[in-house]
Amino acid sequence: MTAQAAGVSVAVSTVIFALRPSPHDGRMTVWLPLVRRIREPFDGRWALPGGPLEADEDLAASAARTLAETTLLTPQYLEQLYAFGNTDRSPGERVVSIVYWALVRSDEADVAVETENVRWFDADSVPELAFDHNLIVEYALWRLRNKLEYSHIASAFLGDTFTLSELREVHEAVLQKPLDPANFRRQIESSGQVVPTEHLKTGGRHRPARLYRYNTAEPDPSNGPLGTRQPSAPKDAS
Amino acid sequence: MTAQAAGVSVAVSTVIFALRPSPHDGRMTVWLPLVRRIREPFDGRWALPGGPLEADEDLAASAARTLAETTLLTPQYLEQLYAFGNTDRSPGERVVSIVYWALVRSDEADVAVETENVRWFDADSVPELAFDHNLIVEYALWRLRNKLEYSHIASAFLGDTFTLSELREVHEAVLQKPLDPANFRRQIESSGQVVPTEHLKTGGRHRPARLYRYNTAEPDPSNGPLGTRQPSAPKDAS
Repeated sequence: MTAQAAGVSVAVSTVIFALRPSPHDGRMTVWLPLVRRIREPFDGRWALPGGPLEADEDLAASAARTLAETTLLTPQYLEQLYAFGNTDRSPGERVVSIVYWALVRSDEADVAVETENVRWFDADSVPELAFDHNLIVEYALWRLRNKLEYSHIASAFLGDTFTLSELREVHEAVLQKPLDPANFRRQIESSGQVVPTEHLKTGGRHRPARLYRYNTAEPDPSNGPLGTRQPSAPKDAS
Repeated sequence: MTAQAAGVSVAVSTVIFALRPSPHDGRMTVWLPLVRRIREPFDGRWALPGGPLEADEDLAASAARTLAETTLLTPQYLEQLYAFGNTDRSPGERVVSIVYWALVRSDEADVAVETENVRWFDADSVPELAFDHNLIVEYALWRLRNKLEYSHIASAFLGDTFTLSELREVHEAVLQKPLDPANFRRQIESSGQVVPTEHLKTGGRHRPARLYRYNTAEPDPSNGPLGTRQPSAPKDAS
């Protein structure tokens, strides 16, 4: 750990998922913002927001900074996803990319407006990306779908309280399949993962519905001794 | 991702867990091998096996190489745990450590014999380690305990088939609490995680007991699109 590893550089990139309606049929699907590269390698290709790690910058802070610089997005917290470091992932250089990810609500996502070099893509049908970023997106989607089963991850799309219909719609959007409302309600209630609040959601075209929240008596497996890494928002983007 | 990140180097370290009896009361607990540092920083302190990433070496291959060089251990596969990269984790230098981990059976663990500079420690009572390695061990233990609940991770300690008593003993050792045999049997059978085989375990001081295996119809959440990273064993250690 003392010898300097020659010729290896470190980058930090970020996968941001939000739920948005499909332009084809209006159904909610998982989307992510990508940034067009304006230099080699892969000039002109779409890529995850990111950049080189600065020597005086923590990993999550680097992820937050490059994300805000390119997309204006400032998620409440970023979680580390995986370090991608195969020797052949970037032509002519050795780069280890530490990838962070976050889920954001639609209203948070709206700050990332589309420009010539920033665009939102349906996560299940991204074009051929720079580097190994297709594999990274595929892995992040797999983790999202997997983690939905055993963590409170859906609340990142929803906020602290939500109706069971809203929670089911998130599950349907992430898993990309319709779920029977009565079965979903029964399963989620018997799991003890969510608890009813004293409040109803009113207004809109539906009748008032009970608001639920995640049962915080159950520890969220996504935390642990590392705590929640909450990067401070970069000054020029807050 | 193109600019060289100045002054950041990359190391790869490994946490290897095995179950061993406590010298105090003979109960099984979680152990890991540590290596004594023989240079600054932290000269003389115990640390995780590891070293600088070579420019032409994949991450898991680096983990396997440095592990074998220091401890002779060659686990069947290493899984990436987390990248630790705080700016203050190594005095006078900026090092991002990508940490791998593996669980090994006791017979696999036995190749790592203790020497002056290699020693096995009870994972819950390690001394003050070099760098942020105490935090890394604490995080790895948390992941192990957490993951036991929803994956096939216990089979790494047991091999492919096992009796329900053996499986309960692994859970007891990892969670560090006694479990009621009848309750454990009922819970594990109703979860569908394990299925009985046609075979009995005979011999020893117990009566013959049914051998079980993990239900491979249930996908193991620890895999995914990245597949199993199976580093080839370094030549001088196989």
